[in-house]
Amino acid sequence: MQQENKAFPGRISLIQRKLSILKIDGLIISNIINIKYLSGFTGSDGVLIICPDRSFLLVDGRYTNQAALEVQSIPIIEYKDKVEGIITAIKDLSLKQIGFEALSMSVDMHNQLISRLENETLINVGNDLKFLRACKDEAEITLMKKAAEISSLAIANLIGDIKEKCTEKELALQLEIHARRAGADGLAFEAIVAAGANSALPHAKPTDRKIRKGDFIVIDFGVKCQNYCSDETCTFALGALTDQQKNAYQAVRQAHDEAIAAIRANVAASVIDQCARRVLGEKYGPYFPHGTGHGVGLEVHEAPRLAPNSQDVLEAQMVVTVEPGIYIPGQWGIRIEDTVLVKENSCEIFTKMNKQLQIIN
Amino acid sequence: MQQENKAFPGRISLIQRKLSILKIDGLIISNIINIKYLSGFTGSDGVLIICPDRSFLLVDGRYTNQAALEVQSIPIIEYKDKVEGIITAIKDLSLKQIGFEALSMSVDMHNQLISRLENETLINVGNDLKFLRACKDEAEITLMKKAAEISSLAIANLIGDIKEKCTEKELALQLEIHARRAGADGLAFEAIVAAGANSALPHAKPTDRKIRKGDFIVIDFGVKCQNYCSDETCTFALGALTDQQKNAYQAVRQAHDEAIAAIRANVAASVIDQCARRVLGEKYGPYFPHGTGHGVGLEVHEAPRLAPNSQDVLEAQMVVTVEPGIYIPGQWGIRIEDTVLVKENSCEIFTKMNKQLQIIN
Repeated sequence: MQQENKAFPGRISLIQRKLSILKIDGLIISNIINIKYLSGFTGSDGVLIICPDRSFLLVDGRYTNQAALEVQSIPIIEYKDKVEGIITAIKDLSLKQIGFEALSMSVDMHNQLISRLENETLINVGNDLKFLRACKDEAEITLMKKAAEISSLAIANLIGDIKEKCTEKELALQLEIHARRAGADGLAFEAIVAAGANSALPHAKPTDRKIRKGDFIVIDFGVKCQNYCSDETCTFALGALTDQQKNAYQAVRQAHDEAIAAIRANVAASVIDQCARRVLGEKYGPYFPHGTGHGVGLEVHEAPRLAPNSQDVLEAQMVVTVEPGIYIPGQWGIRIEDTVLVKENSCEIFTKMNKQLQIIN
Repeated sequence: MQQENKAFPGRISLIQRKLSILKIDGLIISNIINIKYLSGFTGSDGVLIICPDRSFLLVDGRYTNQAALEVQSIPIIEYKDKVEGIITAIKDLSLKQIGFEALSMSVDMHNQLISRLENETLINVGNDLKFLRACKDEAEITLMKKAAEISSLAIANLIGDIKEKCTEKELALQLEIHARRAGADGLAFEAIVAAGANSALPHAKPTDRKIRKGDFIVIDFGVKCQNYCSDETCTFALGALTDQQKNAYQAVRQAHDEAIAAIRANVAASVIDQCARRVLGEKYGPYFPHGTGHGVGLEVHEAPRLAPNSQDVLEAQMVVTVEPGIYIPGQWGIRIEDTVLVKENSCEIFTKMNKQLQIIN
């Protein structure tokens, strides 16, 4: 397998230096995506134990060999039972004040651990790790740009396939074929291809519905490159649109453009949301039922959140989506989405599709 | 959208009748797959509140319209904030003893809820719901058979595509194309196509490695039909195998066959695991690092577990996999898997591929 990325030991060192500030002498990382970020291990289950001077990756037998190939800088320990494995590590290392992630650890796992600990205390440090992965390094940015280019290319190639009477499912498959042939390692999420009334559902799944004249077709698509996600939405039209549809499209586009224009470091994420929401105004606001965007990285949805009630503040090197929409139940929907890199005084758009209204004939 | 499946109100009624036995006057279902099973809602986030005489589905604005289309028998309530939504429901309904699922609820969500509750108590009923979805009804079995047929057909069609020098990734894409064209709604999990040394990793991901003569090619594949999963693994060979490889294949096949022959209602799941493990014996046992099988349904891994330390007992109408394997690190791996329906005195195999050793030339 590939040589270990040097970023991983660096990320763990950063956490190790924080342990004393957090007043803990050990940290249990149970969120599998955080484990991937910190160690490079890509399995579906495991636990990372971080101490000031050493760390351990705990996995079950399915993953022992895979972990050894993926993770060279920290020792791998195989467990038969996960709770047993964690408890053994805590006792062997004589840890007393142990941090854990309350945002992802289940109540059941927590109960099992505390029932086995007498002189040790579990301390929630989830909030301190909330932005662990939010700011991307150069290697991450390179992969995310590549993912964005592949998914944009796949969407561009799909335009030639959009014809009357083809189904949403057929287009979704074709989109995936374009993406995988262009080098995608996989999809970041199940593609949304939603036409006509289905486009009014923000999280529609592809169906056997056939594309018809007058449809908006919402295509929300992302791929993975070495585990990093892209996320982009285009709304195309087939044949003639009503003036109402055209006006709504321009409103979403303007909301999208103004939100992107406002993105820079040190701006509250809620302000970006307001930018989009202000353009949509009283007329369209009630038909925009979701936040304006979210962070993207190893997960397609991660910190920060760009939403009215978000307390997050944008920082340079964050990668976020901007995706306002208008959804008229039972009729049609529009969403326009780009993924951008936050910079000190602006942002850089990763996704490549032009967001002008494209009417396919 | 489609008419609501009549099973959903029936499943909720069953839970409602259990509430008094569990000594609770309300139940918070937060596991999204359990919500799907009980209500038909297929979104990615929401909460189901079940009371003796009524129930409510709580969703955020992204899902209000979708929930209304998918769920007709219970009212939909939109929340802006999930914790706020749950607390409001608890207070409005005057619930006092409230069940929750400790297996899936995060410590953070639990902490937020209890900090807002004074006269109310949260009681873990996760263990009582552990087998909620384990026994399948006739409609579920029909969908699971269909899913199994589609994925077997896709694997059968792939055999013609397996040639020297094609890559694991190319085969994985081709497998998906076969499956989607045969009617799959999606994949149950990212397909495993692992050749040569990669086949020694139980959870390998497809790479650019080219297929070579003498390779075992492990293909672990499943699709979804209306949200229900299939799961099947075939291990093919390209060109000549060593006697050691052939003997190992026959051992896995025998372990698989004997485990399947032992499946029936009222047998401990650990006994099925032992059947497979006994055949593999001291020679191969150290190279079989995972359990013999697991339940399948709305999730590709669900209760029961067929493993040495499992306490589960098989019941009629459970659908489980049987998938012993041998993995020689750095060399090759073999896994053979079928999905079967547990019956009173035997089992019925859903997956269709013949498990005789197939050497492709």
